[in-house]
Amino acid sequence: MTTLFEKIIAREIPADIVYEDDQVIAFNDIEPQAPVHVLVVPKKPIATLNDLTDEDAALLGRLPITAAQIAKQLGIAEEGYRVLMNCGDNAGQTVYHIHMHLLGGRPLLLPLA
Amino acid sequence: MTTLFEKIIAREIPADIVYEDDQVIAFNDIEPQAPVHVLVVPKKPIATLNDLTDEDAALLGRLPITAAQIAKQLGIAEEGYRVLMNCGDNAGQTVYHIHMHLLGGRPLLLPLA
Repeated sequence: MTTLFEKIIAREIPADIVYEDDQVIAFNDIEPQAPVHVLVVPKKPIATLNDLTDEDAALLGRLPITAAQIAKQLGIAEEGYRVLMNCGDNAGQTVYHIHMHLLGGRPLLLPLA
Repeated sequence: MTTLFEKIIAREIPADIVYEDDQVIAFNDIEPQAPVHVLVVPKKPIATLNDLTDEDAALLGRLPITAAQIAKQLGIAEEGYRVLMNCGDNAGQTVYHIHMHLLGGRPLLLPLA
């Protein structure tokens, strides 16, 4: 089943894209939960963190590196930000194509969970 | 300056270690914020996400892969979990050696930030 994110990658659905390369795309969350809320998404469709294999390590590592670059571009690198990935029902994962949330622009919620 | 995590890696400070290989160590958070709260830490001392370089991609990718393996071992993979990394003051980063929080064991907080 094609997810929303595959449709965004294929340009079948519009998105406010802030970064793209051959492996990763990033766009603003349509329902932002903080002043900065960007989704950093591998183009390879992997449903959940439970589906990762060792071969995905380099690709997965591109996500926080890309998030940090976007944070720098948006001017929030020094004040700080959070990156997170949700897996399954207990975390509220809604799109079954793994993605990293980049959240910032104000002090973020504590506790963490 | 040596952080707490370097001291744990060097076995100078005890920790409840749940996983270790040549690149990564994981141990239970000393102040858990959920029934499962494990810290997955690269042995390479990188202070913050802002200090990542492209060379760190494969190492960084080991963190969610390791977290997913631990979630499976702990029996929470199917019900779900969250992984997150804090950078700087706005996210409440306390130890300046990058680390991934693995959180689970119950429905996690929403909103995300």
